This record gives sequence, structure tokens and C-alpha cells, in this order.
Amino acid sequence: MKKIAIDMDEVMADFSSKHLRLFNHKFQDSLTIEELQGTRLRNLRPHMAAEITAIIDEDNFFRDLSVVEGSQEVIRELSKDYEIYITTAAMEHPTSFHGKYEWLREHFSFISPMNYVFCGDKSIINADYLIDDNSRNFRGFRGQGLLFTAPHNRDETGFIRVNSWYEVLAFFKSENR
Amino acid sequence: MKKIAIDMDEVMADFSSKHLRLFNHKFQDSLTIEELQGTRLRNLRPHMAAEITAIIDEDNFFRDLSVVEGSQEVIRELSKDYEIYITTAAMEHPTSFHGKYEWLREHFSFISPMNYVFCGDKSIINADYLIDDNSRNFRGFRGQGLLFTAPHNRDETGFIRVNSWYEVLAFFKSENR
Repeated sequence: MKKIAIDMDEVMADFSSKHLRLFNHKFQDSLTIEELQGTRLRNLRPHMAAEITAIIDEDNFFRDLSVVEGSQEVIRELSKDYEIYITTAAMEHPTSFHGKYEWLREHFSFISPMNYVFCGDKSIINADYLIDDNSRNFRGFRGQGLLFTAPHNRDETGFIRVNSWYEVLAFFKSENR
Repeated sequence: MKKIAIDMDEVMADFSSKHLRLFNHKFQDSLTIEELQGTRLRNLRPHMAAEITAIIDEDNFFRDLSVVEGSQEVIRELSKDYEIYITTAAMEHPTSFHGKYEWLREHFSFISPMNYVFCGDKSIINADYLIDDNSRNFRGFRGQGLLFTAPHNRDETGFIRVNSWYEVLAFFKSENR
């Protein structure tokens, strides 16, 4: 069976909505998701880089993120024909380990924890496909990368882009035709 | 640069000495490392499988394991010519995440956390070499496996075996000749 590796934040879990909401609340700011298009919070408020990171390092930041629309149905569907691995960059934020683990157990209970991979540099991943919102993770990746649309990557070109989980499903349906 | 993936327990960290010591202490037993040759604790005391696992799940079991002789010097030496990744099966024991992370930071501070991989099934690892004490991890591995001798694997054949970190170093020196 071919392997699909799937990133969590911004792909399965809605990271930026919560991050922005907490940032606005904590620092009486009023940034919107629209303002994040093509950029990142740390670029819009460069003098607050440490505070922006600190929000993510708070205990349980990752535990209650919303599930990205369509991800559960589509991944369950894909798991019939592919081996699914969850490959998430957890090492920059070690406080995220338990929140991420428990979130996956809750929302994707059909995926075995044996198929979770908490890593840093993703060039260590051996899979046929990688669905990720960070195009830098495709560098050195031996398979086919699919760039999952997120606010920060809207303007990037040169990658196969998927705008939703329904487009992911369509991609794999056409691969198997 | 070629990649070497290295397992932690029984390869970098002396897992079985502490496990056996705690087991003996807790259950007034007197098993020795010699009795573990070619087998595992759970095979010697099959009626206590749950208790044997529970010891590992205790908080901080992994935090203070002894460093396997030679591992620091040899891995540091190998890191000049190879990309080193630490690939450890952490998903069966999620309580191990922080202990393992902190142990690596303390004893192998020259390896970036971006090169830590906490996983389950290791067929997801893309490396040229895998140094591991569990031969099942070589199944589906695309590179060359090196079986690091541990009590439980003494009798296994059919693999390239390394009995110590000095033998690991000798192996890679002969690879580069």
C-alpha cells in the first residue's frame, strides 16, 4: 500500500484561527484572517515575535483546535486504499506533544497511534505523498508534495495546490483512475 | 549527506537495566540480566504483563536512563559525515515524550531537536541506515539495518550485528573506505 503523510496544523487542525483569537484578546489587537493572507502573524507584528511564540507554548494550545472541514471524512475514505501517517512538526514546541496526541485520539480514532510521527525536519519521512501547508517540507521529500492552502501560503506557486479536503479526495481519485 | 537513523532504548539509553531493577524491587523478584538473554521480561513472567508495562508508563521512567557506553563519542564522530536522526518508538508509551526529549537535550545536546523523530511504525523513516535493537523495524525499511545487540536479540541471525558503539564506528569507517 502506498503511504500518505499528512501534516496536522492548518491541514487537519485549524491552528491560525485560535492563534489569532488569543493574540487579539491578549494584546487588544484586532487583526483578521484576511490580513494574514500571504503572510504570517510574526511578519505583521515583528516586534512581538516572542509573545506570538509564547501563545503556542502555552499548555494545551493544541488540545482543542477545531477540526478542518472535510478532513475526517476524506482521511477515513483515503485510509481504505492508502496507509495514512500523521507527520507533524512537534519538536519546536515540545509542550505540544500531549495535546497533539490526545487531539488525534479524539478526532481521528480510526488512525493507529503507531502511525503518528512527531518530528522536526520532514526530509526523514518515507512516504509517497505529503499533504502539508509548508512548502519547505517538500524540499528533500522523495514523494509528491500537495500544498494545502493556508493563509500564509496563498501566493506560493510551483506546487500542486489543494484548497480543501474535497480537492484532496479528487486528486487521489484521479491518481487511481 | 547520507542519513543515519538511531533508535534510543537499548541503543543509546540503557532501558533494560532500570526496568529490571524496578521490577525486582517492586515485586521482590531477583531476575538478572543474564536471565534476559534471548528473551524478554514479559516472557519470563507472563502473568505479570500489565505490571511490567505499567513500570514503563510511570512518569519520568525514561528521564534518567544511563547512557550506553560509547554512544556519545561515536555519534558525535559520525555526525561529521552523516546526518543523524533519533528515531524512537514513543507512541506506545505517550508518557515517555517529555522524558525522552529532555534526556536527549541533556546527553546529546549536539543533535538538533529538529532531528528527533517520535514515532511508532518505523517503515515511515527515510534514511540510509537504521541502528536498532528490534529487527522488526528493518521490515519495510528502505536502507541498511544494523542490529544493535541487546539481551532480547542475542539469538537472532540474518542481520548485520553490532555489539557496541565501537563496532558501529568500525562499520562506518569500512563503508567509507
